[in-house]
Amino acid sequence: MIKKIGLIGLGTVGEAVLMSLKKYSSLILQKSSVNIEIKTICDANKDKRKLAKNLSAAFTTNPKDLINDPEIDIVVELIGGIEPAKSIIIESLKNGKSIVTANKALLSDSGKQIFNLAKKYNKSVGFEASVCGAIPIIKTISEGLVTCDVKKIYGILNGTTNYVLFKMLKENIDFNIALKEAQDKGLAEKNPFLDIEGKDTHHKLCILSYLCYGVWPSSKSVYTEGISKITLLDILYAEELNYRIKLLAIAKKEKDSLELRVHPTLIPIEHPLSQVSLAYNAVYLDTQPAGELLFYGEGAGGTPTSSSVISDIVGIASGNYGSIRGESKIKIKNIKDVVGRYYIRCMAQDRPGVLAEVSKILASLNISVASVTQKEKKENKLVPIIMITHKAVEDNIRKAITRINRLSMIKTPSQIIRIEDL
Amino acid sequence: MIKKIGLIGLGTVGEAVLMSLKKYSSLILQKSSVNIEIKTICDANKDKRKLAKNLSAAFTTNPKDLINDPEIDIVVELIGGIEPAKSIIIESLKNGKSIVTANKALLSDSGKQIFNLAKKYNKSVGFEASVCGAIPIIKTISEGLVTCDVKKIYGILNGTTNYVLFKMLKENIDFNIALKEAQDKGLAEKNPFLDIEGKDTHHKLCILSYLCYGVWPSSKSVYTEGISKITLLDILYAEELNYRIKLLAIAKKEKDSLELRVHPTLIPIEHPLSQVSLAYNAVYLDTQPAGELLFYGEGAGGTPTSSSVISDIVGIASGNYGSIRGESKIKIKNIKDVVGRYYIRCMAQDRPGVLAEVSKILASLNISVASVTQKEKKENKLVPIIMITHKAVEDNIRKAITRINRLSMIKTPSQIIRIEDL
Repeated sequence: MIKKIGLIGLGTVGEAVLMSLKKYSSLILQKSSVNIEIKTICDANKDKRKLAKNLSAAFTTNPKDLINDPEIDIVVELIGGIEPAKSIIIESLKNGKSIVTANKALLSDSGKQIFNLAKKYNKSVGFEASVCGAIPIIKTISEGLVTCDVKKIYGILNGTTNYVLFKMLKENIDFNIALKEAQDKGLAEKNPFLDIEGKDTHHKLCILSYLCYGVWPSSKSVYTEGISKITLLDILYAEELNYRIKLLAIAKKEKDSLELRVHPTLIPIEHPLSQVSLAYNAVYLDTQPAGELLFYGEGAGGTPTSSSVISDIVGIASGNYGSIRGESKIKIKNIKDVVGRYYIRCMAQDRPGVLAEVSKILASLNISVASVTQKEKKENKLVPIIMITHKAVEDNIRKAITRINRLSMIKTPSQIIRIEDL
Repeated sequence: MIKKIGLIGLGTVGEAVLMSLKKYSSLILQKSSVNIEIKTICDANKDKRKLAKNLSAAFTTNPKDLINDPEIDIVVELIGGIEPAKSIIIESLKNGKSIVTANKALLSDSGKQIFNLAKKYNKSVGFEASVCGAIPIIKTISEGLVTCDVKKIYGILNGTTNYVLFKMLKENIDFNIALKEAQDKGLAEKNPFLDIEGKDTHHKLCILSYLCYGVWPSSKSVYTEGISKITLLDILYAEELNYRIKLLAIAKKEKDSLELRVHPTLIPIEHPLSQVSLAYNAVYLDTQPAGELLFYGEGAGGTPTSSSVISDIVGIASGNYGSIRGESKIKIKNIKDVVGRYYIRCMAQDRPGVLAEVSKILASLNISVASVTQKEKKENKLVPIIMITHKAVEDNIRKAITRINRLSMIKTPSQIIRIEDL
């Protein structure tokens, strides 16, 4: 079976896909009986023409040459970002082509429209590469776990932030130094905002929400907080308390609501997710009937991600690609209503009565404290007070922090980090 | 889309499949657009008739009632063992039905014949439940990682043995006590031979060998050693040396040969596989281009395994099931030619010159020692000598042990356990 492919966008992933297709073509044929032919390659940069020549493929700078080519069965979109990727995908679907894409930003923004269109035209959209690079998490959830009711998702979905947090702990360095190191190693963009502020993780969580629950959440409904406020101090205090700080994508399904949130989280140090090092990704699922599952692997990089892009191409080309999931309705819980445990760090002047004042505020808001550690003076003659709460409502925690920060002996904004006892 | 299923064998997994199908049918329909109807259920035990009634399915004690029913599209074989399972599968394929099975013993014995027949009749054989219970490792390898050249597999594929080794370490108990505990908890069979002696892991490794390399190895060509000779002493000494003992299925692909073996293995204590507790399963893959991957979950039990059986049914019913992998030829390395590092424990009389004699034998066979620990007397006035070797050829290790065991001051057979520095 020979299928003709058009590929748009020769960035890191695009080039790696071409390389891997060439290198592993006979292996792919042996495993799947599918012969993939790249007919046309498109990139805005004319200098990439030689890459097409190596594969005996045509080259163009105009996406329309692929979209309007009746011989092309599958369009592989590897440009990223919203436009022109969105128009290319929509036009291609309308022209009867299936799509393979790694574009998490676009899917989280317009997934609903794209999948509805694919359904209408009876075409497939492969998006394995959009979440967790090389880990086949999309296929696993949509096909391997098709029977499963996913109760909880905890995912380390962004390599850059995991690398930064890992290095801060490992090398006892501050956030900015770790970020600089990640940038020097090519593990963080020059403008690292999307990664560091949790936006990339947010995009991926939206895709997992669709897969697991049939819900495309609005951007606003998924609370998203990045790691830029996490200090080395917090990382070290968390370790003392047997917790590790990870940026998690979290989903929890309750009877008639769904929690979806992205934020730094204290998790037990002995949980496998705490051991995820460097820029690796991992997804932990709590399901019925399959039970607990964990998937771990490379979350980014051209070569690893090429595995997922090609798996989609092969699946669609061989007619073995799963059907498009139906949508469903479930209320997404407001973060203020979430109930959980919290790590609170206040920086107080070393005066009598601080702890009494802070405790009084917490008690008045029904927040019960599980442990308190008052540290020796360290920074600016301020004393860190670290508290771990019992279960409390987020809204009350926020009110408490506002009041605590207004106390005269509290001199810098207090830190709160959510805890998950998974 | 409605597909009619015949299910044979109502053991733990069979009953759980019926339960899960009933409980999750609307979820499955929403995710996959597939409506599964169990038409006929077959079991030798007539008392199971009421289970069929609950599902409005017909009941029979005669498998031929399913095999010869032209309305049935898929036969789900959950009897286990070689016969009559083998004949049922072969007759069903010949009658134009696809198969779903959890039968690792049968596939490792007759997989070649069964898959060739399926190819001939253009039918599918789903076998997700045959390896690692609830972990969709078959789909992951055959579809998700279709591009991948799998360099190495390290798998904890048997829950019983992992449970026994885990409990020995955790509770400082001997093998027999841990095994008894596993039996009491229903985690080990009354006759635990298949599990304990590594045979079950061996069956699963044969299936992974076919999936990853296109090779159905002969039973003899896969060296298989169980855990019954592992003592608490070895487990504790390994821990002191920062290793943990796990029963591993190992595959390593070299240029023109393949290593396939099952044996207790010392692995670094900080590797994620060392953390796999209780009866959980895990598979670590080293691949190109996807890099390192790890999959973790429940390896047995009716409810978790039902997830994999149903995923196969849905995949085949919706026409999205992957094609049958081609076979290929590669030489399987004899265990005697394998090169690795070894843990050696000798029990010697406390006399001068023991270490000198042992060292002389090792040196004469080109075995270089990386570390030696001579312990204080513990058992029967014999002194344990624990050695870790540098890389050595297995054949030389075996010769050395034979000679060491012949020394007059060595009173009990010496222990060797292979090390993998993964």
